[in-house]
Amino acid sequence: MPFGTIRVQSLLRAVIPEAHSGPFEMIIVMQRGASEPQIEHLTKYLASRGILAERMDGHEQTVIGIVGSNGGYDIASLSAMSGVQEVVRVSTPYRLSARTSHVEDTVIKMPDGTCIGGNAPSIVIAGPCSVESEDQLRRTAECIRKAGVRFIRGGAFKPRTSPYSFQGLGFDGLELLKKVSEEFGLFIVSEVMEPAHVPAIAEFTDIVQIGSRNMQNYPLLRQIGNIRKPAMLKRGAGATIEEWLMAAEYILAGGNDKVVLCERGIRSFETSLRFTPDLGAVPVVKKLSHLPVIVDPSHGTGRREFVSSIARAAIAVGADGVMVEVHPDPDRALSDGAQSLTFELFEEMMGELVRVADAVNRPLLVEQFHAAAQHSVPVR
Amino acid sequence: MPFGTIRVQSLLRAVIPEAHSGPFEMIIVMQRGASEPQIEHLTKYLASRGILAERMDGHEQTVIGIVGSNGGYDIASLSAMSGVQEVVRVSTPYRLSARTSHVEDTVIKMPDGTCIGGNAPSIVIAGPCSVESEDQLRRTAECIRKAGVRFIRGGAFKPRTSPYSFQGLGFDGLELLKKVSEEFGLFIVSEVMEPAHVPAIAEFTDIVQIGSRNMQNYPLLRQIGNIRKPAMLKRGAGATIEEWLMAAEYILAGGNDKVVLCERGIRSFETSLRFTPDLGAVPVVKKLSHLPVIVDPSHGTGRREFVSSIARAAIAVGADGVMVEVHPDPDRALSDGAQSLTFELFEEMMGELVRVADAVNRPLLVEQFHAAAQHSVPVR
Amino acid sequence: MPFGTIRVQSLLRAVIPEAHSGPFEMIIVMQRGASEPQIEHLTKYLASRGILAERMDGHEQTVIGIVGSNGGYDIASLSAMSGVQEVVRVSTPYRLSARTSHVEDTVIKMPDGTCIGGNAPSIVIAGPCSVESEDQLRRTAECIRKAGVRFIRGGAFKPRTSPYSFQGLGFDGLELLKKVSEEFGLFIVSEVMEPAHVPAIAEFTDIVQIGSRNMQNYPLLRQIGNIRKPAMLKRGAGATIEEWLMAAEYILAGGNDKVVLCERGIRSFETSLRFTPDLGAVPVVKKLSHLPVIVDPSHGTGRREFVSSIARAAIAVGADGVMVEVHPDPDRALSDGAQSLTFELFEEMMGELVRVADAVNRPLLVEQFHAAAQHSVPVR
Amino acid sequence: MPFGTIRVQSLLRAVIPEAHSGPFEMIIVMQRGASEPQIEHLTKYLASRGILAERMDGHEQTVIGIVGSNGGYDIASLSAMSGVQEVVRVSTPYRLSARTSHVEDTVIKMPDGTCIGGNAPSIVIAGPCSVESEDQLRRTAECIRKAGVRFIRGGAFKPRTSPYSFQGLGFDGLELLKKVSEEFGLFIVSEVMEPAHVPAIAEFTDIVQIGSRNMQNYPLLRQIGNIRKPAMLKRGAGATIEEWLMAAEYILAGGNDKVVLCERGIRSFETSLRFTPDLGAVPVVKKLSHLPVIVDPSHGTGRREFVSSIARAAIAVGADGVMVEVHPDPDRALSDGAQSLTFELFEEMMGELVRVADAVNRPLLVEQFHAAAQHSVPVR
Repeated sequence: MPFGTIRVQSLLRAVIPEAHSGPFEMIIVMQRGASEPQIEHLTKYLASRGILAERMDGHEQTVIGIVGSNGGYDIASLSAMSGVQEVVRVSTPYRLSARTSHVEDTVIKMPDGTCIGGNAPSIVIAGPCSVESEDQLRRTAECIRKAGVRFIRGGAFKPRTSPYSFQGLGFDGLELLKKVSEEFGLFIVSEVMEPAHVPAIAEFTDIVQIGSRNMQNYPLLRQIGNIRKPAMLKRGAGATIEEWLMAAEYILAGGNDKVVLCERGIRSFETSLRFTPDLGAVPVVKKLSHLPVIVDPSHGTGRREFVSSIARAAIAVGADGVMVEVHPDPDRALSDGAQSLTFELFEEMMGELVRVADAVNRPLLVEQFHAAAQHSVPVR
Repeated sequence: MPFGTIRVQSLLRAVIPEAHSGPFEMIIVMQRGASEPQIEHLTKYLASRGILAERMDGHEQTVIGIVGSNGGYDIASLSAMSGVQEVVRVSTPYRLSARTSHVEDTVIKMPDGTCIGGNAPSIVIAGPCSVESEDQLRRTAECIRKAGVRFIRGGAFKPRTSPYSFQGLGFDGLELLKKVSEEFGLFIVSEVMEPAHVPAIAEFTDIVQIGSRNMQNYPLLRQIGNIRKPAMLKRGAGATIEEWLMAAEYILAGGNDKVVLCERGIRSFETSLRFTPDLGAVPVVKKLSHLPVIVDPSHGTGRREFVSSIARAAIAVGADGVMVEVHPDPDRALSDGAQSLTFELFEEMMGELVRVADAVNRPLLVEQFHAAAQHSVPVR
Repeated sequence: MPFGTIRVQSLLRAVIPEAHSGPFEMIIVMQRGASEPQIEHLTKYLASRGILAERMDGHEQTVIGIVGSNGGYDIASLSAMSGVQEVVRVSTPYRLSARTSHVEDTVIKMPDGTCIGGNAPSIVIAGPCSVESEDQLRRTAECIRKAGVRFIRGGAFKPRTSPYSFQGLGFDGLELLKKVSEEFGLFIVSEVMEPAHVPAIAEFTDIVQIGSRNMQNYPLLRQIGNIRKPAMLKRGAGATIEEWLMAAEYILAGGNDKVVLCERGIRSFETSLRFTPDLGAVPVVKKLSHLPVIVDPSHGTGRREFVSSIARAAIAVGADGVMVEVHPDPDRALSDGAQSLTFELFEEMMGELVRVADAVNRPLLVEQFHAAAQHSVPVR
Repeated sequence: MPFGTIRVQSLLRAVIPEAHSGPFEMIIVMQRGASEPQIEHLTKYLASRGILAERMDGHEQTVIGIVGSNGGYDIASLSAMSGVQEVVRVSTPYRLSARTSHVEDTVIKMPDGTCIGGNAPSIVIAGPCSVESEDQLRRTAECIRKAGVRFIRGGAFKPRTSPYSFQGLGFDGLELLKKVSEEFGLFIVSEVMEPAHVPAIAEFTDIVQIGSRNMQNYPLLRQIGNIRKPAMLKRGAGATIEEWLMAAEYILAGGNDKVVLCERGIRSFETSLRFTPDLGAVPVVKKLSHLPVIVDPSHGTGRREFVSSIARAAIAVGADGVMVEVHPDPDRALSDGAQSLTFELFEEMMGELVRVADAVNRPLLVEQFHAAAQHSVPVR
């Protein structure tokens, strides 16, 4: 059998120990008038699936609390059983990405000690949508580095809505990124699109990006779970916050605990911007999860004239950073030119972000680069 | 005929002069291969409706530009005519609320000279969801006044999703608002829900609020157009920005040019907050319109723990102010307790907003009140 | 005090008796580790507000069930109290419109015995968007009457997005409707837009329509609750099914139990149609409520070419009828021409609906009209 | 360079010939008052990118029509150029999937002559969410075969929101599917989740399914473009119809022209069902594209009680078929039990679909199976 070796990965690394106590995960409210046989049938059914349930009888109505299920149930199925009025989940379906399981903020440490998340300075990730040429990349790197930025973004493998659009330079693009980023002391953020590419791309990048279209590409997430490089997980445009945290769970469950979430706009009925930046998601995620969360106002708005204002709002609302697109000549960009900042607009935005970040007591990471010394020193 | 007097108002005050020149409002692209008779039928049809059209022939395809239509067409109807490939609107359907018709920002001046919009300081409107009692109102007024706020909100007529919920104190509530606001030198913002109440409520308030559920209540908007008090128009939860500006157009067309827009969250698939605060709408509206726009993070989020962060983001994104709910004892509020700030949280938020507003060069309006002098003086 | 007479209506007619038993309305799940004082504080708080609560202690965690609250609580506020993990509503917030309170389908009987809802034949309501002239109306009435239709729609008071669009003929339009409908033995469906017009418009119409923009116009709903004519409540484009049923509750609570719900498309991110017809809402509403529900594919799609297919689907999915726009010359309609069927398309659609309605065992109401006999007889 | 072999695929097979004539793809409306140098700068810019443009001068305003661009532009970027008022696309961005490029309906022929699409009978695809065991599969196959169904669905590789949920039996599941389907003369529909699995899974299945979460997984779509088996492309829950057709374009551009589209519910603010079935998408897609489109009411609703009504509506609205989940014991299903039909409900639904399909003149494909003869014969 020629494909015997590519069976689906059946067990996640993070085996969940049999939980025989714990908070209620779910409450089943029986109908008023549910019969004793109905209640017993349900409790036996739960027991037969290894689910620990506690029965609590009210005056006229019975409630069943569930602990230690290991997720071995389906709310909708239980809801459909006879005698059941309603089934409500009272805990989150994600575990490792939940704040309850990890009270402290996750802080991701880059090799030189630069941190993302927690109380670390807010970061800016900047760079072109796609890597197009060495010249384009070096000019951009120089511009953002002068402004104190430490992270460069640049797509080498591009997910494009149209098959007729530029699809990226591939590994040639990654080699350019590597070369230029070393010159300027920048960390590389770049996207990976398919599971088979993960190990190779992880070699080239400092933060591996999972794009919004791949947020629920589970084979890809599992491969990301296998590496030990930080991963930036963009939210799908049609994904709820819960689904986003469940996607992060795939990576965490694989053993990679360095996940940065990136909000980049959701689909709503409002079409004046390309997407609807969901800034409310930032404090919500901060409450539900310990993972750092940044905002991408370039994809969220789709138009450069709105990038700076959403970036300011992202910092004000409490994000751990922003990621923006910058291009030396946006009109001639091979992708996403309309949302790329010019160098001038980028520098202006940086000035604004420094002030807003100070105002909310999360100063922006702004580091001058000493080419001679080959290392970074804080500007301020 | 007993109801002869309540005929629908057939003509708006702002009569639009016959426009025989002007920019293209609409472009009709004929199909490649559209026949001469088809093109002629269309141009005659337009002429018969008094629509000025210009025909432009390309190499193989004809394009028709429309000016001076006075809106006497329906895009979808034209699209359905034979030989037509596509009809695209190239101007906005609102006129008086458009930035193109009024390049300068509208600045609304309150009787004492306090301004809203333009480069005037950002404002804070604060107060309880509903007026419940004199004590509740006075305590709240004192709290917000100490923090330098000049505008108090408080609902007397409440639109409630459930008919069984508290519906407001009505005019008794307005009298309480009047009494307390005079004591503390506050401007009153309160909602009107039906056309017949407009004149009376306008007497009692400084800014008349149209709630989000009434954003397209046209008889109400027409009545608001008849008064000369400033009006705050909340965006409907399911309304596009264009519909919102069209609703403002009803008020402006009636002759009342003092409209403040208020973004308060839209419906999206994300349900972790009560609504999705659409902060991107602020810079979009600022571009499309000259009207001031403020943000209501209390209704936008529905939960007090998220109010401050969205308020900070609103100021950072460029709003002309925020409106928040404050209550001396939110747990006992008769409405919207969950989203009302306690006094402590309110004061904390004010401190944050002052800093963010400074960072974006739109200092917050913070005025100390001298009871003795019966007037306000700037705190800073 | 000059406006003493227009105080807000403080009590709904349908006074809800003190419920001291009943099914759980809400379940409060305390945190594991919630202290006894926290639990006691909560139960005392509930008691102080007249809310009947039952405490159920699990092995390590306590659950509180609430009955007989009369809605005197706010879920979000309770959620915010200390020691509380989660508060979940387990019953619907509407009562009179709920299937649980009224197990049998509501069937609305017109004066001549024609029925809407239950097992009665599916109905078709047809007519122009706006009443424009007697000729337009008579020709349309004749067309639909020949096809066996018994209900004519026609707007006299029009809610228009733009203040510059045709706003309807007002009461003149209603008079035309009255005249023509009597000629052809048709029931009139027409919209009311403001509370003060309700009694007069109710005189003229057989079914009073509340438009989607006014779904949460509570003063209007209260007035509709005061009359005894059937009311058709269109769903707001941004309204959840729960909010829609809550709006119906306003009418029912006022004492008018003849409510027909009308689904007419919701706002979603998909913009290829004017709205997104939510046909899934039909079986959902049928499960949650006893009220008849019809579908408006004209507003739902905004384009005539899609009206028939959505109408067929509406009948197939189980709706009690459909409402469509028909116009003798849609290209020259003063409103909504693009979504109005021509007579030919209308007749074709009727043939299709008859077949689909038969296929799902809800034959279409198709009645021939004998002008001589001045009454209707079934065609089939 | 060790990974030289996995460069991104840079050129699609379907090379688009230089188009020097054709319909306008885009119209650029210059501002009234745009200067001659602005217009010239724009036309030179277009020429420099190989874009063929036609200038049409109106009385006071210039319009530029674009043909033959090969997509080498970005609407938003052009919009941002000086002198430009608005840029509007007047053709669709997809080509091979557009009705304009392929006027006749695509009809997909299975090896035995069974057809999907066009005027072929409507099909039903039925089976369990996941393949769980041989017994489960055989019982299900027997049930659906008796009802005349020719297509069995069953997931072997499952995309699950939670990493802790059952992930499918992998290739063992496909072997079971193969065995059982041969026994009963059924075509297999099963999902592929990663590019590397495509060739192997295509061996096992008759129709390869791309799940909604992978609708924009471009490396996967490219691999599907390389095979010659029919592909079923589910719509992403957050994807517009245009994006869906663009995703189909990836497969078609790869050379695989056997694409069936599957609508399975979109995300909207309405949460009473798991998703919002977008039945309006069926006639819209039929107009825009030549590809067959079916509907999945199981995923669209998430609850078995609503599956039949949405399936009926799907057939009535004009879909080429439906795909539903059936399970011998849904309460014990390892995935999606709540939305799986029992055998009884399935048979009832089939009876309903036969009637509705007849009513709309697209009879359902219902074929009896003669085990002895090893072939299918029509039941009716």
